[in-house]
Amino acid sequence: MFVKEGIIASPGIVIAKALVYEKVVVKVNENKVQDIENEIEKFHNALKLSHEQLENIRIKAVKELGEEEGAIFEAHAMVLDDPEFTEGVEAEINDNHLSADFAVKVITDRFFEIFDQMDDPYFSARAADIKDVGTRVLNNILGIVQANLSDLDEDVIIIADDLTPSDTAQMDKKRVKGFATNIGSRTSHTAIMARSLEIPAVLGLGDITATVKTGDTMVVDGSTGQVCVNPDPDQLKYFEHEKQKYQEYIKELEALKNLEAITLDGRKIELVGNIGEPNDVGGVLKNGGVGVGLYRTEFLYMNSDKMPSEEKQFAAYRSVLEAFPEGPVIIRTLDIGGDKKLPYLPMADELNPFLGLRAIRLCFKEVDLFKTQLRAILRASVYGHAHIMFPMISSITEVRQAKVILSECMKELDKEQLRYDKAIKVGVMIEIPAAAIAADIISKEVDFFSIGTNDLCQYTLAVDRMNQDVSYLYDPFNPAILRLIKQVTATSELKKEGFFTGMCGEMAGDPKAALLLLGLGLNEFSMSALAIPQVKKIIRSVHYKDAKAIAETALNMETGEEIMDFIQKSMEKLNLNI
Amino acid sequence: MFVKEGIIASPGIVIAKALVYEKVVVKVNENKVQDIENEIEKFHNALKLSHEQLENIRIKAVKELGEEEGAIFEAHAMVLDDPEFTEGVEAEINDNHLSADFAVKVITDRFFEIFDQMDDPYFSARAADIKDVGTRVLNNILGIVQANLSDLDEDVIIIADDLTPSDTAQMDKKRVKGFATNIGSRTSHTAIMARSLEIPAVLGLGDITATVKTGDTMVVDGSTGQVCVNPDPDQLKYFEHEKQKYQEYIKELEALKNLEAITLDGRKIELVGNIGEPNDVGGVLKNGGVGVGLYRTEFLYMNSDKMPSEEKQFAAYRSVLEAFPEGPVIIRTLDIGGDKKLPYLPMADELNPFLGLRAIRLCFKEVDLFKTQLRAILRASVYGHAHIMFPMISSITEVRQAKVILSECMKELDKEQLRYDKAIKVGVMIEIPAAAIAADIISKEVDFFSIGTNDLCQYTLAVDRMNQDVSYLYDPFNPAILRLIKQVTATSELKKEGFFTGMCGEMAGDPKAALLLLGLGLNEFSMSALAIPQVKKIIRSVHYKDAKAIAETALNMETGEEIMDFIQKSMEKLNLNI
Repeated sequence: MFVKEGIIASPGIVIAKALVYEKVVVKVNENKVQDIENEIEKFHNALKLSHEQLENIRIKAVKELGEEEGAIFEAHAMVLDDPEFTEGVEAEINDNHLSADFAVKVITDRFFEIFDQMDDPYFSARAADIKDVGTRVLNNILGIVQANLSDLDEDVIIIADDLTPSDTAQMDKKRVKGFATNIGSRTSHTAIMARSLEIPAVLGLGDITATVKTGDTMVVDGSTGQVCVNPDPDQLKYFEHEKQKYQEYIKELEALKNLEAITLDGRKIELVGNIGEPNDVGGVLKNGGVGVGLYRTEFLYMNSDKMPSEEKQFAAYRSVLEAFPEGPVIIRTLDIGGDKKLPYLPMADELNPFLGLRAIRLCFKEVDLFKTQLRAILRASVYGHAHIMFPMISSITEVRQAKVILSECMKELDKEQLRYDKAIKVGVMIEIPAAAIAADIISKEVDFFSIGTNDLCQYTLAVDRMNQDVSYLYDPFNPAILRLIKQVTATSELKKEGFFTGMCGEMAGDPKAALLLLGLGLNEFSMSALAIPQVKKIIRSVHYKDAKAIAETALNMETGEEIMDFIQKSMEKLNLNI
Repeated sequence: MFVKEGIIASPGIVIAKALVYEKVVVKVNENKVQDIENEIEKFHNALKLSHEQLENIRIKAVKELGEEEGAIFEAHAMVLDDPEFTEGVEAEINDNHLSADFAVKVITDRFFEIFDQMDDPYFSARAADIKDVGTRVLNNILGIVQANLSDLDEDVIIIADDLTPSDTAQMDKKRVKGFATNIGSRTSHTAIMARSLEIPAVLGLGDITATVKTGDTMVVDGSTGQVCVNPDPDQLKYFEHEKQKYQEYIKELEALKNLEAITLDGRKIELVGNIGEPNDVGGVLKNGGVGVGLYRTEFLYMNSDKMPSEEKQFAAYRSVLEAFPEGPVIIRTLDIGGDKKLPYLPMADELNPFLGLRAIRLCFKEVDLFKTQLRAILRASVYGHAHIMFPMISSITEVRQAKVILSECMKELDKEQLRYDKAIKVGVMIEIPAAAIAADIISKEVDFFSIGTNDLCQYTLAVDRMNQDVSYLYDPFNPAILRLIKQVTATSELKKEGFFTGMCGEMAGDPKAALLLLGLGLNEFSMSALAIPQVKKIIRSVHYKDAKAIAETALNMETGEEIMDFIQKSMEKLNLNI
């Protein structure tokens, strides 16, 4: 009967019975313990049991979801073996006389917080993994058996507070048709899993577990963010119609997979994927991405307890390059600092980390680290169309400084008689206002630009978008942002053949922005793989000249709100329903 | 014989004997104490003695330096009476059994740190005051008598680690002719005092107290930042010549006091002062400033243990307005947040305070506070030419929002039949890149702009200039900054008669930037009072058309370094020696 709105996490519409999945609330013993040996033994037994469970889940996950999903549980098992975890727990038991369960909770929470504070989907996902594996060990210590979703009789929509990798891995994928949860965001594990299973999901509904009962009929509309509990006949009719429409739309998108992203009047756009690790390549290929517009190499460093070697990096870069024999692969050099730290690279606390020692600035300070990465990229460059991209550039001086180091690496490789692409393309992120404003100057030293809208917005508007008190001011449609984008593409158009400007911030994958961005003159859009088909459809449905005129009009408007309204109306006029 | 370079703190050249002023290093008793009552009594006796000393110093300071300097010691005496201080110390003695001296040190350090972390000359000065008064109490507890500079036989240059208000107040002003210190910055107390006494000072020399002996002959050149110890005859001759030149230059500047700031070809510029409190007006008038370009009202809030009332604010604003019957007084509404906190306004900790809830953003959240200030400004506006300026504006939406609140205040005053200037001018700080980029849009709602280069630079270059790891990137001469300034003045020139663009960041008072800023088309320069004569001299010595051509050329250069070089050479060509 009632309709509620949450966060859109995975598109599609499903109508099915609700299954409320509630977990046992775990209570730990917070009293000091005397028999330390007994607690240590409990901990070790739980570790052993957890190992066995994870191996079983892993096998199931590989069979049902593929190697990539299976790897999550290998990572979980690695946490069980991580001395920082095991020794941390043992120290809490030995030194502070905590119970095994309390010690596991304390250490898990500590790990979780470190990762959870980072404004980055990969690291938040890692935080969720840590919580998941910690809860597993805790349950095993306490002998708690959580509810099980592995054997279901009918098609269901899972209603939960939140879902962990362990929950979803064990899930009966044939029967689970949708998710609706109390908490979560577009980048939480539940969202990623729903998109990977291609089932609708609406998250962040607040109290959906309290308002729905198992057996209720439910609609989850992952395209509008609505959920409807026990729909009346009119509502049911409406949602069935919407479901039908959505399925037709999906078929249309699938038909586009191998077609070019080209406007009706012949402007070709390159649609490419943002990736964090070689495994993500599959999704880009599946969704028709022709290359990689942003390879975020941080993950390689983050998923390691020491600096990754040149060989390890070389292997990773090479495997991505080989996956795209025709298309470009833009490898961004290490973008650490700000809210992303490395455990093996101590960094000073900063009053304003977003305005501090980040990315290229850190690489200039840690030249050995930087050179190792550049050498690995150069060596891999012979296996495809590698592009090097420097992040956080604020002036031409920094580009020149980076290129001096790059040419030192080239000379080293020459001496060692190692091959590399001597004509490798070099570009920069445009994410600091100064770089956009002085794009014409910077363009003298590079082959391409990629606009990072997330940071560009943050700096141009002086807003930390993670700060809830001011995030309302974060607006990529603000006229100042659009003008900066235009300034960059205008510079790009004056350059010689081959120079291009892409965008790899979140805006690039937002279908509501695609028409505007096309009109602003971008040559390349890089986004999460799943967004590619929708953006391709929009590009293939319009004339570039129309998009250009629309962007021109938008550029003369006063506020982001006005611009968003105008773009929406323009899309309706052009029948670009999304 | 040897020459060393430090931070230029106060101009002029002096040649005299060195007097090394070293303080007794105070050691506190860090052992736990038993006789608590005895420690409390020691503390109270020291408070009483400190009160007496401060009153004597205050009388001397008023006589020799004026009311303004005397007020510093009233503020010191207020610290002695502040319950946060006295009760803090007593609690440390009672609860933690600290000695009276250790307790005073702990509490003083705690207070000091709070103020010292703020990127603001007023609050750093306050930190120095707190340290000074804490040291006084400590010395009185321990019976330590510090060296005394109040009775000197000959002219001297004071060589010290650093100087506190207590040191300088007691100083024999007739005999002290210069300062050279190990630590300090342009905004430290020693610097401010030197400028107020109009004696040369070079600070931040590192180890000058260790390398100079009392009685050495010394040169302090506060114009180049050089100090020379025991000059040889050639050096002496050189510095005597430089001294002569400097004195002639000062006479020239003094002759300009009542003249207009007008270029040789007739472009009039408004030279005005930055002030923090009504007391600062004297300096502006003395140096020929025709008004106030930036009244930083934070001080009114900061120097108070509760929100200042409308009446208190009204009185302060009125007194400043009455000091300038002809000239403008631009009152900036509260710019708190970021690194500036108010003790009575609790604010959440932020990960990136510079990108957080600051200034106008905070005022929109604390509307009552905002309205109290706006009402006080409006009521004072009938006593002069008040202008209201909103800080941290990022879009026209915020300007409109602020103006709605302003007009509510006007309606209230109408109802209460209180007078105000109905045509009061309203402007904004241009300190967020988006505001500069969209200046044409924002100009529709305002009467003037004032460019705040400090923040504009920080955001445009994504650099926290207080962060030593990246402060090398902070460069107001970066081409992107100059382009933003030009974009703002270009908008300004297209507006109707009366619209103007000023600048109130540090760059506005930098004589090395004056020629460039003039050429970029600024109408008003607002700066610390002492910088006014030099900038006026530059403006009166050039043709606007030449400055414009120079700025045009600079705008086409690639780096800040190149631009600075070019400006310096252009100034040499035009004989604008500074």
